[in-house]
Formats: sequence, C-alpha cells, structure tokens
Amino acid sequence: MKKHSKKRKNPAKRRAPVGASPGTIFSDPEAAPSKVHLTSYNEQELVEEDITDLSSLRSRVRERAVTWVNVDGLGNENVIQEVAKAFGLHLLAVEDIVHVNQRPKVDEYGDLRFVVLRMPRSSDTLETEQFSLLLGPGIVLTFQEQIGDCLEPVRARLREGRPRIREGSAGYLAYAILDAIVDAYFPLLEYYGDQLEDLEADVLDHQNQETIRSLHQLKRDLATLRRYIWPLRELMSSLARDESGLIDETTQVYLRDCHDHALRLMDIVESYRDVSSGLMDLYLSIVSNRMNEIMKVLTIIATLFIPLSFIAGLYGMNFNPQKSPWNMPELNWYFGYPFAWGLMIAVAVTLLVYFKKKGWLG
Amino acid sequence: MKKHSKKRKNPAKRRAPVGASPGTIFSDPEAAPSKVHLTSYNEQELVEEDITDLSSLRSRVRERAVTWVNVDGLGNENVIQEVAKAFGLHLLAVEDIVHVNQRPKVDEYGDLRFVVLRMPRSSDTLETEQFSLLLGPGIVLTFQEQIGDCLEPVRARLREGRPRIREGSAGYLAYAILDAIVDAYFPLLEYYGDQLEDLEADVLDHQNQETIRSLHQLKRDLATLRRYIWPLRELMSSLARDESGLIDETTQVYLRDCHDHALRLMDIVESYRDVSSGLMDLYLSIVSNRMNEIMKVLTIIATLFIPLSFIAGLYGMNFNPQKSPWNMPELNWYFGYPFAWGLMIAVAVTLLVYFKKKGWLG
Amino acid sequence: MKKHSKKRKNPAKRRAPVGASPGTIFSDPEAAPSKVHLTSYNEQELVEEDITDLSSLRSRVRERAVTWVNVDGLGNENVIQEVAKAFGLHLLAVEDIVHVNQRPKVDEYGDLRFVVLRMPRSSDTLETEQFSLLLGPGIVLTFQEQIGDCLEPVRARLREGRPRIREGSAGYLAYAILDAIVDAYFPLLEYYGDQLEDLEADVLDHQNQETIRSLHQLKRDLATLRRYIWPLRELMSSLARDESGLIDETTQVYLRDCHDHALRLMDIVESYRDVSSGLMDLYLSIVSNRMNEIMKVLTIIATLFIPLSFIAGLYGMNFNPQKSPWNMPELNWYFGYPFAWGLMIAVAVTLLVYFKKKGWLG
Amino acid sequence: MKKHSKKRKNPAKRRAPVGASPGTIFSDPEAAPSKVHLTSYNEQELVEEDITDLSSLRSRVRERAVTWVNVDGLGNENVIQEVAKAFGLHLLAVEDIVHVNQRPKVDEYGDLRFVVLRMPRSSDTLETEQFSLLLGPGIVLTFQEQIGDCLEPVRARLREGRPRIREGSAGYLAYAILDAIVDAYFPLLEYYGDQLEDLEADVLDHQNQETIRSLHQLKRDLATLRRYIWPLRELMSSLARDESGLIDETTQVYLRDCHDHALRLMDIVESYRDVSSGLMDLYLSIVSNRMNEIMKVLTIIATLFIPLSFIAGLYGMNFNPQKSPWNMPELNWYFGYPFAWGLMIAVAVTLLVYFKKKGWLG
Amino acid sequence: MKKHSKKRKNPAKRRAPVGASPGTIFSDPEAAPSKVHLTSYNEQELVEEDITDLSSLRSRVRERAVTWVNVDGLGNENVIQEVAKAFGLHLLAVEDIVHVNQRPKVDEYGDLRFVVLRMPRSSDTLETEQFSLLLGPGIVLTFQEQIGDCLEPVRARLREGRPRIREGSAGYLAYAILDAIVDAYFPLLEYYGDQLEDLEADVLDHQNQETIRSLHQLKRDLATLRRYIWPLRELMSSLARDESGLIDETTQVYLRDCHDHALRLMDIVESYRDVSSGLMDLYLSIVSNRMNEIMKVLTIIATLFIPLSFIAGLYGMNFNPQKSPWNMPELNWYFGYPFAWGLMIAVAVTLLVYFKKKGWLG
Repeated sequence: MKKHSKKRKNPAKRRAPVGASPGTIFSDPEAAPSKVHLTSYNEQELVEEDITDLSSLRSRVRERAVTWVNVDGLGNENVIQEVAKAFGLHLLAVEDIVHVNQRPKVDEYGDLRFVVLRMPRSSDTLETEQFSLLLGPGIVLTFQEQIGDCLEPVRARLREGRPRIREGSAGYLAYAILDAIVDAYFPLLEYYGDQLEDLEADVLDHQNQETIRSLHQLKRDLATLRRYIWPLRELMSSLARDESGLIDETTQVYLRDCHDHALRLMDIVESYRDVSSGLMDLYLSIVSNRMNEIMKVLTIIATLFIPLSFIAGLYGMNFNPQKSPWNMPELNWYFGYPFAWGLMIAVAVTLLVYFKKKGWLG
Repeated sequence: MKKHSKKRKNPAKRRAPVGASPGTIFSDPEAAPSKVHLTSYNEQELVEEDITDLSSLRSRVRERAVTWVNVDGLGNENVIQEVAKAFGLHLLAVEDIVHVNQRPKVDEYGDLRFVVLRMPRSSDTLETEQFSLLLGPGIVLTFQEQIGDCLEPVRARLREGRPRIREGSAGYLAYAILDAIVDAYFPLLEYYGDQLEDLEADVLDHQNQETIRSLHQLKRDLATLRRYIWPLRELMSSLARDESGLIDETTQVYLRDCHDHALRLMDIVESYRDVSSGLMDLYLSIVSNRMNEIMKVLTIIATLFIPLSFIAGLYGMNFNPQKSPWNMPELNWYFGYPFAWGLMIAVAVTLLVYFKKKGWLG
Repeated sequence: MKKHSKKRKNPAKRRAPVGASPGTIFSDPEAAPSKVHLTSYNEQELVEEDITDLSSLRSRVRERAVTWVNVDGLGNENVIQEVAKAFGLHLLAVEDIVHVNQRPKVDEYGDLRFVVLRMPRSSDTLETEQFSLLLGPGIVLTFQEQIGDCLEPVRARLREGRPRIREGSAGYLAYAILDAIVDAYFPLLEYYGDQLEDLEADVLDHQNQETIRSLHQLKRDLATLRRYIWPLRELMSSLARDESGLIDETTQVYLRDCHDHALRLMDIVESYRDVSSGLMDLYLSIVSNRMNEIMKVLTIIATLFIPLSFIAGLYGMNFNPQKSPWNMPELNWYFGYPFAWGLMIAVAVTLLVYFKKKGWLG
Repeated sequence: MKKHSKKRKNPAKRRAPVGASPGTIFSDPEAAPSKVHLTSYNEQELVEEDITDLSSLRSRVRERAVTWVNVDGLGNENVIQEVAKAFGLHLLAVEDIVHVNQRPKVDEYGDLRFVVLRMPRSSDTLETEQFSLLLGPGIVLTFQEQIGDCLEPVRARLREGRPRIREGSAGYLAYAILDAIVDAYFPLLEYYGDQLEDLEADVLDHQNQETIRSLHQLKRDLATLRRYIWPLRELMSSLARDESGLIDETTQVYLRDCHDHALRLMDIVESYRDVSSGLMDLYLSIVSNRMNEIMKVLTIIATLFIPLSFIAGLYGMNFNPQKSPWNMPELNWYFGYPFAWGLMIAVAVTLLVYFKKKGWLG
Repeated sequence: MKKHSKKRKNPAKRRAPVGASPGTIFSDPEAAPSKVHLTSYNEQELVEEDITDLSSLRSRVRERAVTWVNVDGLGNENVIQEVAKAFGLHLLAVEDIVHVNQRPKVDEYGDLRFVVLRMPRSSDTLETEQFSLLLGPGIVLTFQEQIGDCLEPVRARLREGRPRIREGSAGYLAYAILDAIVDAYFPLLEYYGDQLEDLEADVLDHQNQETIRSLHQLKRDLATLRRYIWPLRELMSSLARDESGLIDETTQVYLRDCHDHALRLMDIVESYRDVSSGLMDLYLSIVSNRMNEIMKVLTIIATLFIPLSFIAGLYGMNFNPQKSPWNMPELNWYFGYPFAWGLMIAVAVTLLVYFKKKGWLG
C-alpha cells in the first residue's frame, strides 16, 4: 500500500482569484510545458507532426477528413491561447482546460462539444490527470496535463489503418479516445480489488494499526474514484443522445456501450465501497471479540487467584499467638496448613463452577 | 458455510486490453470448449441436434416456427464468430457475450434483442455463470459459460409437447428461459435464508470469530446477489414494454409476472441484508453486554479483595515490636487477630453496600 | 415478548419447482381445506350460503346486484381450479393465489382487477395470511389462507342493511374489504408501539441480553411489517386511479382515504423503526457509559491499593537484619511502623489528588 | 429537559374499530367539550359571537364577505355533526376531524378544501393539537382539539381592521391562519436549538446517563417534529397551486412564502437531527477515549507494581535457611536488601522504558 | 481550530413574532446602520456615489445603462423602506431581506428577480452574511448585513472599464456578483480541506479529546456549509433557465458555468463530509485497537504474576511446622526454595505457551 500518492491535492485548490473576470487564465507555474501534436488522416493516408509554429495550425486543419490536435502540458499560457484562438474556443472552455480539478462534464459551445474528464495515469496508484476534449466537425482537440497517456492503442489502430477508425468520423475518434480512457479505469479497479482481498486477509489474520490505516486510505481512494467515475455515466449518455450530427448513429451505438462500461465501473466502485465498509465493521467486531476473550481469561485468572492470595496473605500475618488464644490459633493447629489448602481449593472450585455456569470457560 | 466459493473472482478482471478496438474478442484460455446445440420446433414436431458443421447453421434456421440455438462454453473463438456471423450479431454484442462479468441488461441491435444476465449454477453456493440471450424473429440464440444449466424443465416442456410453449412464438420461448433463470434464484435465496437463521442462532448462543466471519461472508454474498438481481427488474420491465412485435401481448403478461418475481427477489435480498446488518449489531450488543457483565464480576471480586489483601499484607510486615511500642503493637494485642478480621469484614461490607447501591450486584 | 411467532417462514420458500410451466399450481400439503361461501345482495335482499356443489357457482352469480364469493383455505386444488374456471381467472392469477408470499400488488387481467395483500390475523403477534381479491363487474372473489378473518364488521354492515354498502357497487364492497384489512394493521401497530415503550423503559432501567434479544426481534418484526405495508400505498393509489369503470367515483374518494390510511401506517412503521434504532444506540451508549463508570471505580481502588500493598509486602520480606546493617534497618527503627504508614498515606493522597485532577472522582 | 411530555401518545391509538363503516365518528370520551365561535367581517365591519343555537348557523353565514367559524374541543359529537351538516362536509372529512393523529394533508371535497395539520401549543414542550381547516367560498371553518391557540395575532389584525386581511378573501384568512401555525414552529425549534447547545456542552463536559437520556429524548422529539413538518411543504405547495379560484393569485404569492417557511423549518429540523446524531457519536468517542486513558493509567500502575509486589512476596517466604544453603540464601546476604531494591528498580525502569516506547506515558 | 466562531447563531432565531402580518419588518437592534451606495455606468462612463438623500434615488436610476444600488447594513428600517418604495419591492421580499437566515432561493415578483444567498466573509472562519440581490431591467439592487464583502474585484473590473462587464446588461452584473460570491466559497473550502488534512494527521498520531472536539466542530461547520451551498445549484440553474429576458443568452452561458461551480462546491463539501465521517471511524478503530493492545499487555503481565505472587504468598504463611509434620513441611525441605522457584517457572512457562498459542505475544 506504500505506493498511494502521499501528496494528495486539495480539490478546492488552484482556483483563479475570487471575483476574477470569467475566462481569465491563471496558469499553474508548476505545470508541464505545452507540446502540440497533430494527427491528420482519411481512409487513404495518415500524417503525424509536432507543431511548433502555431500560426500555421489553422491552415493545417481540414486537410484530411479528420484532424486530431493533442496538447500535452498546460504550462505555456500563450500556446494554449493560440490554439484556443485557432479553433474559436469559448473563454469558459479555456478556463476549464487550464484550471484542472473540473468535475467530468459535457458542455455545448455552438457547434463544439466540450468534454472534461479525468484520465488514470497508472494502474496501481490513484494518479490521474485532467483530460479535455473538444469535438467539432472534422476536428478533435485534446488537452492533457502531462506527457504520456493511455491512448497509445488508439494511435496504433490509426497507424495500422484499421478500417473502422480510419473510415470513421471525428465523432468516432472522440469515442475511441473516451472509450480508451474509460477502459483505463478497469485495471486500476482490478488493482484496488486485489488490495481489498489482501486487506480482508489482513483483517482476519492480524489486527493492527497498519491494517486500519491502509483500509482508511483505500476508502479515501475509492471515494475519490467514485467522484471521478460517477459523472461519466451522465457524460456518456448525454453524448450518446447528442442530436447535433457531430456523432453519427453508428458511433452512438458504441457510445452506449461506453456508457454501459461506465455503469459497470460505478457498480464495481460501489461494491468495493460496500466491501471496505464491511471490512471496517469486521475489524471492529473481531477486535471487540478478541477483547471479550482476553477479558475472560484475565477475569478468570485474576478472580481465581485474588481470593487465594488473600488467604495466603491472611496466614502470613504476624499476630502473636503467644499473647492470646484469639491470635491466629490456626497457625498452631495440627492440620492448619492442610486446612488453608482446603479453604483455597474450596474457593477455587466454587469460582470455577460459577464461571462454568456463566459460560466463560469455553 | 464451508461451501462458499473461495476463489471469488475480481469483478474488474478479465477485460480486453485498454484501448483495444471495440468488438475485439479476447477469449479466456480457461473457458470451456464451445458446443452448439439446436432445437427446432413447431406445434407438430420438434427436432434436437448437436451442430458440428457450423456452415450449415444458417440453413437450418427457420425450418420450423421457432429455432433455439444454444452454445455451451465460450472457449472456441472461431465457433462463437461463426455463430455470430450466421445470425448477423453486432460486434459489441459478441464482445459482451465473450467478456463475461457484464451487468444484466437488454440492448437493441436492429431487430434483435440482446439480453445478458447471470444464471445461478447451484442452490447452495453463490456460483453463477453469464447467460446471454438473443431474440430475433423465430430465433432464440443463447450462450452459456459452461455446460449444465437450470433449463432442463423448459426442455422437458418442449419435448412433452406442452401446448403453451410449443404453440408459442420465439418470444414465449425467451420468456420461458428467462423465467426459469429468475426462478432459479429462489432456492438459492432460500438457502441463504436458512443460513441466516442458523447464524442468528449462533449469534445468540455463542459469540466467536467463526460466527463473525460467516456473517461477513454472507453479507458479501448478499451484496453480490443484489448486484445480480437489481438490474433484473429493469430488464424484465423493458422486455415487457418492448414494442417491436418480437414479444406478443400474451407473452408480455407473462413477462410482467416475471418482473414481479424479480421484484420479490429484490425484496427478499433487501430484507436479508437488513437482517444480516441487524445481526452484526446484535452481535456487537451481546459482546458489549457480556463485557459489561464480566467487568462487573471482575470489579466486584478485585475491588473487594484488594483492600482485604492490603490489610493482610499490612500485618505481615516484620517491624520489630520489641524495638519500640510504636512498631505494630496490634500484633501483640489480645484481640489483634479478631480486630484485623473485623476491619476486613467492615471494609468488605462497606464495599458490598456501595456496589449494591450502584446496581452492580444483579 | 414471548408471543412472537417462533416458526418464522422463510419468505423465499414454498415456490413452484424452478422452470415449471407458468400457472402450474403446487398446492401446499399443509394448507387448510377449502370452503366456499357466497354472499349475494342488492338493496332489498341479502342471501348467504355455503357452496358445496361448485358446478352451480356460475349460475348463482349475477342473481343480485353484487355477489361476493369467499374461499377459505387453499388446500383443495380442485376447488380452487373450479372457482377459477367459473370466473375465467388467468393462470398467473391462480398461481399467485395459491403460492402465498406474494408481495402486495394490483394486476389487471382483462376486465378483472386482481389484488393481493397480507391480512393481519392477530393484534398482538405478527401472524398474517395472504388475502387475494378479484374484482369484476358485480363480482368480488376473495381467497384466504385460513378460516377466520377481520371482515366480520363488513359482513355485519351487509346483514344490517346499512344503505351505503347495500346500495353500493361491487367496487364499494371491494373497498370496504380492503379498508377493513388496512385498518386491521392499526391495532397491531398499537401493540408494537406499546412493546417499544416497554422496551424503552427496559433499556433505561436494566441492560441485559433479554432486552437486546427482544429489541432485535421487534426490529425484525417491524422490517417484516414494513415489507407488507410499503406496497399498500402504491396498491391503493393505483386502485383509486383505476379508469375501467369498475370503481365508481364515489368509491374512489373512499379509496383515497384508504390510501391515506396506508400512508399513516407507513409513517408509523417508519417512526417505530427510527425509535427502535435509537433504542439500540441508547442501549450501547448506556452500556458503554456504565463500563466507563465501573472501570473508573476499579481503577481508583486497584491503583490506590496496589502501591500500598507493595509497601506492605516490602516490609514483609524476611531479610535478616542481624547479618548486615543494610538489611531492612527500617524494621528496627523506633518509628518504623509509623514511617511505613506515613509512606502509604503519602502515596494514597498523591494518587487521590491525581484522580481528582483527572475528574475521575465524581 | 424535565418539561418534555411524559405521556407520549401512541400514534397508532384511538382509531375507530377495525372494519367500521367509513365516516363513523367515535368521539374520544376525554376530549374537551365543543364550543363554537363565529367571526364575520367585511371591509367595513366585524362581528364576533359565541354560537350556542347551532340551527341558526347556516343562516348566519354569508351575512358578510368572510365568515370564520371556529370549533374548540371535539368532545360533543352532536355539535360536530350539526356544524358538519350546516356546511355539507363529507363524512370522511368529519372522520378525520374527530379522529386526531391524522398526517398533515390537503383533501378536495367538491368546492371545499380540507386541510389538516398539527399546531404547536407551547414553545418549550412538544405539545401539539390537531388543527383542521375547511375553506369554502366566503367561509373558513376550523376545528381544534382544545381551547387556546396561536391565532390571537390573527384575531387582533382582524379586530384592528388591518386592510390586507379585512379586504382579503376567505382564502387570505385561511392563509393568515396557516401562516400563524407554521410560524408557531419557529419558537419551538428555537427552544430545541437551545436544548441542543446545552446538551453539546454537557456531552463535552461530563458524560453521564442523564445526558444520554436527554439526547435520546431530544432525538425522539425531533423525529416527531419531522413527521409533523415534513408534509407541510407538500401541503403548502399544493394550496399555492390550487386552481379552483378559492385562493386568489395575490394570496398564492403569500402561500408560496409560507411554503418557503415550511422549507426552512424542514432545513432546521434536519440540521438539528444531524447535530443530535453527531452528538451521540461525539459522546461515544469521548467515552471511548476516556476509557482508553483510564486503561492506560490502570495498566501502567498495575503492571509496574505487580512484578515489584511479586519480588517483595518472594522474599517474604519463610523457607528455612538453616535447613539448607539452597533455601533463600539471599536473606542472609550482606547486601540482600539493597539487592532486592536493585532488582525492583531495574524491573520498574525496564517497564517504564517499554511504556514510554509504546507511547503510553503522555 | 480556535478561530471557529463560538457564538453560533441559532438558525431558528430572530423571527418576526408568530402570527404577525406578512411583510412586517422587525429590524434587529444589533444590526449595522444602513449605508446606500450607487454605481451607475454604461460603456463610456461610470459614476459612483454614496446616497444620503434617498428621495433622489428614484431619479438617479436609469441615468445610464446599468445602475447598481448597494445597501450595506440592515439597521435603519426607514432606509430599507425608502429604498424598497423607490423600486416597488414586494412586502415579502423586504421581509426576507431584513429577516436574515433565509435559505438561498430565487423568487419572482413581477419583472423583478429576487435572489437570496449567503456570502462568506472570511476564508478561514465560517462567518457569513445574508446577501440579497434584486435584478430588474437596468437595475441591480443588493443588500448586505455588514460593510465589507468579496465584491471588490467586480468593482475593480467596472472601474477599469473591462469591456465585457461595462458593455454588459444588468443581468451580466448580477452574474458577476453571484459568481464572485460562489467563488468566495472555494478559499473557505480550501481552508477546511487543510484542516481535514491536519486532523487526519492528528487522528493517526495521537488520539485525544481535543482532536475529537475539533473533528466534531468541523463536521458541524461542513453541515452548515452544505446547507448554504446545496440550494445554490437550484438557484443558479433556475436563473440560467430564466425566460423573462432579464438575462440575455450570453449571460446564461456564464450562469451555467456558475452552476457548474456550485456543483463542484457541493462535490467538495460532500467529499469532505465523507472524509470527516471516515476520520471519526478511523479514530474509533485506532482507539479500539490501542485498547486491545493495552489490554493484552495488562493481561499478560497480570496473569503471569498473579499465580506467581500467590505461590510466594503461600510460602509466606506462618503455619507452625513444629506443631505438626503437615504444617508447611516444604519450608524445611533441603530444596524447598529451588522447588518453589521451579513451581513458579513452570507456571510462568505454561502461561506463556498458552498466550503464545492465543497469538497475544506479538
């Protein structure tokens, strides 16, 4: 469990100053530098290129059936602004792209569809980045926080010339990208499922603070995942019902499948949350049960020997028998010691019978 | 409780690689080999046959009023593909058939209805398999993970020539199959109901870790069952409202009854979940109560004897009375020993009165 | 609390075999034998009769404005079948009548309304039976599991010739019957309300396992009641909105009142469930509080006397002072014993001050 | 907290006998005797009168623009019946008026609106009475369980001739009355808010059973209040949307404001319930924390001295050193006593270091 | 955590007397004196002025495209009344402005939109004030409880002549103000997020009452925040869907963005509430775990030494061996003392083995 990201980001942080004009961009100084990559293709050919001269961007679009412009890193404000200008993005869309920590959603800006969601960056830590996608006629524009993503298989299918994607519209490309992102949650959930199994074994076998901390951490991670995944269903279903013509009917069937995947993700997250709550209860029950057992042993041994020790202490008193016949005559009895033993055995047996009756002996 | 399946499958597992082209089939190497069985009937006659030459499959269909093609085992990718091709299944449907762990649902693909749900394989373990059913005009196509199912009574009714089923449409056959699957949950729930009764007795009679583990296991199983059963209601009600003509009106009355059964299943699962949560609370209350009782006994005996032992210890000290009249003159008193006893009895009575007042003595 | 039914029936039990043809009747061998009773009336006259020759049943109906056929006991399959045939009941309705444990609902079969609900059989135990009612034009057909019900006042109103009921339609009779059944839950809830009061007093006064068991039993009973009552609201409101003409407008006003009663029942059950959950919490708090108090007393007495006993034990050691001046010279001091007392008093006072500061002394 | 009503009424009680004819009145023998008061006004004049001759009631109505007939006390069945007859009330409305414990609601009976709700009778106990209001054209008819209510300010505004109310319709009068009743919940909630503050202080300062009982009582009272207030929102909003013309548009604006007040009441009750649940948790946490602390002290002192006492006890044994050199030679060592002390100090230091390491010492 | 406002206001307080005429203003004697400030602007010019002569207010409005009248402090009843008269406010709106503690909402009064919400006054305490905004054609009228607000950046944008706001309608100004208020919750939530982080560290590191109190306080604050933020979503979405023409389409896009911010606020609050509940559970688990550990140590040491002390006490008894061969012959055995040691070691080893088997030793 050590891999869990320690520097959890406060989700309320990194906002524009209160009352600032809407659409103002406050780029994060720690953000990665921006790199623009263009993929342009039709059924016959596919061209990939890194774009450095942003002024040429506008002219490069619509050369072929579908153009995909991907921006990695949000660190260069002017790059973002140039790209935004080239595609006529609304100020509020730009603000949402740059100020990460948006909740997943679809917005409409004229003939553009603006999709924001979180993309998992790893299959065994809860590391995600904000992924923004703009879908226009023949154009897909994507923004990522950092270099590196889970879209390589999509690029491979493009390069290999798979017909469904190469003959498809920009809407199909957008679907392929979103589907890849949604599917990237499955290995992550699988990882958490394995963690849960391990934790369940831990809870049953030994109960210590480490287990509790890991369980708490897991619950927090699942709550965060839930926040990422919950709005995906709404998002996918609203895309699948889009009537603008950007997404053709065939693609909508695929988006419905993607919506179904989002439903399954949610189902899994919910069942994991159930299980983790159940584990917390189980932990408390087991600890409580063990306390009960320990208390029983303590009580039995302590209450058994406390009266015996008292008797032993009693005959350890130094009252002087020579001064008076009242002073501990037992010490001089012929069977004094056996009498003391008898007394102690009688007390012990009485108590054991009592405990037995109470059901504490087994 | 030992029968509960140990090798619980991680529901997020066995997915296609992230970003793979939709509809790509990744058949599980451990899946059972595929066997194709055809049942074709009308009012007059019924023919059953194992199909090995899949190329003939297409021609065999529509020979009689209703054709039921059942595929047991999902291990042979090419068999599945052939069958899919023969009936013109959508790629996404094929993907859902092969990649088990789908959530129960109904999808529409043109004039086909695609139903996925989970079928119980046993009435006393939570062993289930994915069951996919495609309903087309005159055709029912079913896919099961393994050989063996709960549909024998349906086959018997077909073979015995019961009029309702033999004169019915493919829609009625689909209903009969789905009804048999839904009803197969009842004995399973009955089993869990009995388990709950046993656990309740266990919780009341003796509280140990085994009880808690069984209860935890039962809660997990019920949560899983709930995930299987919850979508059945939606599924049945959407079939009962289907307007494509695939399901005639008479059959829709039956499907509404089936929907009602799904509601009852859900009711039962929910009430079991309630009871199992109540048992956890009951367990904790009883343990807590017992701790209270044990603590009381320990406290009474310990606090009673601790002062008495102190007094005994006091007069066991070896200060030399001969050196000074201040040194333990009690030891040489005439009534020294009775005095010590009196002191001890006084302390004991005082404490007992105090405990009595506190209500700890009964 | 002893009256609570011990032989709680598993709600998932007594189903038809899985996969059986729908509408198949599997009569319970333990069910009571069936008796058919006919009440036929109009404004002027009322005839009551036990029917043994079922073949005449059909002809007897519609002799007067309203005919009420009541079947007590579901043990004779052929009786049920004859009655069903006489009134043209749908197979699924018959199945629901015989296979008790249905959830309360209204179904439509052509011009018949089929109502199933549970009727309380007692006002101080959770004993209920399934009550099925079929309403057709001029006909009310009822089925009960056992002889004896809460409908005597309805029969009395019929016999006494109260105008509202004697002049009313079959719909009004159905309302009167359903209203009587719904109202029969009120004394039962009153009983549970009294139980709750008693249990609350118990929880506050003495906390033992019996209280907890009774509370658990009560919670289970309330959960069961909730399952019976919850669907009544939907049932009544769907009858009150029925547009078939079977239920005239005047009667619909009464049914809305009945719906309102169902709402109140639900309100009461929910508030009882709230209270019973609160009692469980209260119980745990009180036990926890009492543990705290007991621990305090134990701690104070034990930690007070443990050091004192140690000092007493110390000077009970038998080191030989004659062998060396280092060996327990205190024993031969002139003020040795007072010194020991002083030491003990000092320790005791120090500890008491510490406990006082901790707030443990009151 | 002593003022809380002890004789809580069982909400399921005081019903008509099961199966009784609907609309049958079973007047409570303990109910207060009925008094009828009439207020009749228009813009110019206002007449107030106690009505004893109920036969004249009908003729007195409609003398002026608005007539308000108020009945205090539900003890005289014939008075209620006479009034009901005079205004043509539906049997079911009369039943609801007399059988108190109705849930707040609005019913329509022809051109009458029938409103039932609960009116607080005090601002510092949960004492309420059922208040029924019938609104017809030019007529407001109200029924109260007991004499005395929170409507004096409304009467004062009428007498003082405030234009808004004197020129208003019967609908406005109904609004004014309902608004007064809804607003009467605010001082009651304020009282409970203060109680919560006090209890919070109690929970933080000292944890005893009295606190827990008061908290439990408060939670029950809040649950009851919630039951009274929850339906008010629906009630007000349905009146504000009434389209019968009984309530003019200006008054509907006021009713929407009243609806808003009901929303605020609900908000406050919900937040109080949240706080009271939080207090229960806080209580348990504090008790649990304190137990932890007490256990630590007990453990430290007990485990420190138990080994020391053992050592002391060891050298208090009376084995005879003269019989053998093996028998307790330590007693005759030159440094025997210092050796014993050394041993004890070493043990104590070891244990303290261990406790320190465990973090139990502060 | 000391900054949390101690003098929490009872939300049910400071209401008008029950039954008072609607629209009656009961100004709070402690409220701040009222100051009226007017900002009037169009694309070309902007005028700001403190208004003391309220009679001129009416004439000053509509001098330029947009007029913003801001009233700080609700202490002067006549000032409020004058302003209300100048703009023709409805009595109920005035009542809501003055009687703070309203729940956030939008009301329609003719061509005016009346918005009430709570404005944070600080980014590190839960200090808020009621903010009322009236939007009419060309007019924005705002009322604040106290001087000082979070709107300075809006005023700055106006003064700096930013085109979007200076060319915008009154609807845009209203949006800018509401957006500033909604955004002012983000730093406050950020503060609470940091508090949560700190508390989480506290809970994991040391468990004391202070932590629990802070956590409880935080939970209460979050519940209060939730009450403020929850209705904002409804409020923003109803403004964004306003069809009166007061808010032009461009501004509605911005309001949708603002609605999105409200959704994110709610998301954050909910996740904080989740985390704080999780922390309470974690706290209890850790305390419970620690108790378990402490009990184990206590049990091991106590149960180990209690039998040993008993043996030591046994041989400390003073039975006189000279009186009888039965009286403690062990004391005179040659290997008496080693025998006693052997006995003690045997008992200790037996117990250690038992504890080892129970798994209590690590």
